[in-house]
Amino acid sequence: MKGIEVKQVVKQFNKETILDGIGFTLEPNKIYGLLGRNGAGKSTLLNILVDRIQADSGVIRIDGEVLRDNDQVLSKMFLMSEVNLYPQGEKVKQIFKWTERLYGNFNMQQARYLAHQFDLDLEAVFSKLSTGYRTIMKLIIALSVPVEYVFLDEPVLGLDANHRDIFYKELIASYNQSPRTFVISTHLIEEAANLIEHVMVLEEGRLIIDDDTEKVLANAYMISGPEQEVDEYSEGLNIIGSDHLARIKANYVYGELHERPIPDLINIDKMDLQTLFINLTKAGERNE
Amino acid sequence: MKGIEVKQVVKQFNKETILDGIGFTLEPNKIYGLLGRNGAGKSTLLNILVDRIQADSGVIRIDGEVLRDNDQVLSKMFLMSEVNLYPQGEKVKQIFKWTERLYGNFNMQQARYLAHQFDLDLEAVFSKLSTGYRTIMKLIIALSVPVEYVFLDEPVLGLDANHRDIFYKELIASYNQSPRTFVISTHLIEEAANLIEHVMVLEEGRLIIDDDTEKVLANAYMISGPEQEVDEYSEGLNIIGSDHLARIKANYVYGELHERPIPDLINIDKMDLQTLFINLTKAGERNE
Repeated sequence: MKGIEVKQVVKQFNKETILDGIGFTLEPNKIYGLLGRNGAGKSTLLNILVDRIQADSGVIRIDGEVLRDNDQVLSKMFLMSEVNLYPQGEKVKQIFKWTERLYGNFNMQQARYLAHQFDLDLEAVFSKLSTGYRTIMKLIIALSVPVEYVFLDEPVLGLDANHRDIFYKELIASYNQSPRTFVISTHLIEEAANLIEHVMVLEEGRLIIDDDTEKVLANAYMISGPEQEVDEYSEGLNIIGSDHLARIKANYVYGELHERPIPDLINIDKMDLQTLFINLTKAGERNE
Repeated sequence: MKGIEVKQVVKQFNKETILDGIGFTLEPNKIYGLLGRNGAGKSTLLNILVDRIQADSGVIRIDGEVLRDNDQVLSKMFLMSEVNLYPQGEKVKQIFKWTERLYGNFNMQQARYLAHQFDLDLEAVFSKLSTGYRTIMKLIIALSVPVEYVFLDEPVLGLDANHRDIFYKELIASYNQSPRTFVISTHLIEEAANLIEHVMVLEEGRLIIDDDTEKVLANAYMISGPEQEVDEYSEGLNIIGSDHLARIKANYVYGELHERPIPDLINIDKMDLQTLFINLTKAGERNE
């Protein structure tokens, strides 16, 4: 069976439960969004998936094989994260070659093309790059390594709007050219919403959403109008939050609406993914 | 005269021109967006405005008085930036008190209210806070100091979507309650677009836009349709970029449209601020 199977994964740090018996499946050639508040456990989960951190219990299978200490399986996966694992004194092009040796393969043509798109100098020394360009170099490597599973932890943190735009476009182009599985963890939810085929929302160590983006958004509504009418119509619906603007109220609803006709004074709009996320996870961040 | 006047400010670092004779006016009680690529000089400019960095030449007047080494003028301004100037071992509430002593005043009620909204523990020690909560503490101070000019350099970097949402709402609430001047430098342009009354775009050390947001957006269009028709209609317009999707082309135009009727196959939509920015500054980042 191709894909990644995660079953009952538990992880504690200092007696605090970070992942609380989490389970899901990642299918081949799909783009996943892993969303969650700061401190929700996203990075821990990604590190467990590539065996950099060991879970306390649970099972992870990659293409049917158990993950733990399995070099053959690990070579199918790549995690791009904030941690800098690269030799500080080396030039960008040397780091590309070093990655090629490590993985036995590397799409050097793709890497050179992306460096050109992002305007990254291949002769620049890693330690002399700006924070933004260090991230860009890591993104280029993540898009050019010959792996089936690519995990991106906050791939666009600190990038300016132009570089984020290039990244989103090149990710899609690279995926179309050679489909593989991506898991993208990001706080810039609305920008990534168009890329993500499947949404996972992690909240206090559990997955509270694990579904196709389209299905999730099909159930996400904003009901607005005069307060009394909005509250009357919303009764019995799954209200996850609300906002006020002068005498207008908006209720955010996640779930099915009534079958009865919509009253005249009420507007029903679709909710975007970021607004849905904010309302679903309002009480969530751990005050570390 | 109230407000900030900047005239012909030049700043070089290592023979590279960061600010190239820049000039503008900040009016009292207005919210400004200072936009620019990574490396465009935004942080340098903000540091010059609060006298932490000295310009090579040029004049800056705050409420009519020259800035340089003028304590009375400096006490009217606050810069929130990535730099941590706070004593690492102190508790949050002690840092609030310390700020109060420094400024002779501090809206402690506002600070406590905001700490509650963001779920920041006043008893927590600064050095033990997560990166996100360090930023939040600094934001709270920036919204609670008794100054007329508040400069925010990347205020939401690293914050999750919920905390960014709280910040935008509380900034507006605080501004409505006590109007003052804000200058917000951010890469999350679309999220901030609703807050910003006036847009400044810095590009290679010069201001290429310095105008009310409404006016700027009134001149920003996306013209889409079949390639030939789009190119024909766009001739003579100020095209700042274009995109292709299959056989559909979109031209981004900044400026006035033709007075003649719009052809049938052509769609004209408004461009959002982030798309405008991306297209205006495409060649801009310095590869540091």
